[in-house]
Amino acid sequence: MTQYRKTERTRVKRLPKRAEYDVEKVNAIIDEALICHVSTQVGGQPLLQPTVHWREGNQLYVHGSSKNGLFKALLEGNEACIAITHLDAIVFARSAFHHSVNYRSVVIYSKARLVDDQDEKRHSLDQLMEKFQAGRSVEARPANEIELKATSVLAFELDELSAKIRTGGPVDDPEDMLLPVWAGVQPIMTQRGEIEFDTTAGA
Amino acid sequence: MTQYRKTERTRVKRLPKRAEYDVEKVNAIIDEALICHVSTQVGGQPLLQPTVHWREGNQLYVHGSSKNGLFKALLEGNEACIAITHLDAIVFARSAFHHSVNYRSVVIYSKARLVDDQDEKRHSLDQLMEKFQAGRSVEARPANEIELKATSVLAFELDELSAKIRTGGPVDDPEDMLLPVWAGVQPIMTQRGEIEFDTTAGA
Repeated sequence: MTQYRKTERTRVKRLPKRAEYDVEKVNAIIDEALICHVSTQVGGQPLLQPTVHWREGNQLYVHGSSKNGLFKALLEGNEACIAITHLDAIVFARSAFHHSVNYRSVVIYSKARLVDDQDEKRHSLDQLMEKFQAGRSVEARPANEIELKATSVLAFELDELSAKIRTGGPVDDPEDMLLPVWAGVQPIMTQRGEIEFDTTAGA
Repeated sequence: MTQYRKTERTRVKRLPKRAEYDVEKVNAIIDEALICHVSTQVGGQPLLQPTVHWREGNQLYVHGSSKNGLFKALLEGNEACIAITHLDAIVFARSAFHHSVNYRSVVIYSKARLVDDQDEKRHSLDQLMEKFQAGRSVEARPANEIELKATSVLAFELDELSAKIRTGGPVDDPEDMLLPVWAGVQPIMTQRGEIEFDTTAGA
């Protein structure tokens, strides 16, 4: 599969030229982000939480306390809508109306599966460690049985989703191009800094 | 009011020491972010979108096309759950289990109000320009009537919400402190870069 399938609700209706369904490109957007926002609903009440995510193949994983209310709602079979978003720049146009932002976002519809196979659970949690830093899964003390039990891992199949991407500069109306107003793009950079090592006694 | 009110669903149950309800502190988290994630549901189906937001007093604003499906669902009276999240650091612990992230997040329950008063609409859109850059609302060509009509502005009262904040280093179990495993905090920095000016002909 090289393209995610388009469904009625993942077909981008507004500005369809910004839509992206290419599996490699979509997965790159997912992988570059450390956190996603997961929503669902229970009895007509929306629930939404940010959480760390990781991906392997067509499975998106999140983890958390087994007492988490959102997780409970998801495991009762309520559908999830998950968003992953990078804000890349502010776009300054000559007109207020055409100001915009450059971004890459993915919106996923899926249902949660509880990862209860212990091998898959350990393997997938190792993948999270590897996302934090390559090699970390063999450095850190692995989870013991109690810790593993206290952690729920949920998997979502990546199947019904769409990405939207805006890049480039402002798009002003032709009649505004001669206005004495500057226009441009201000990038927003997100990067990891230097690790501050913990030197607490005993370390 | 100096504290947001706690309700059953905004009382932080897990790790309550991370909760924050102080109005000034919560508003600072909201204001520092340029985008939020807005969720709602229609007929049991969750909807979720990232969008730019801004705040004035106890009103959170978002804007978009008047044809936006999420906006329609919100204006039909379906409740919104809105999240604003800053990821500040990755926290490396000696055990896999105690790895964490430092973050500041706000989760808001509210119902949308369509801003149809033209003065409030213009004023609030000016506030968005000012958030993009101080002074921008007087530099850029203001929206004309057609543009104003094509833009929907939604307001959400900030009332029922909670913030969660994690700061600091890893918290390892005492028996892990002597393990030969490094621990520490890797900050994640988000900042605006230099503006790349648009020099398209006519500019």
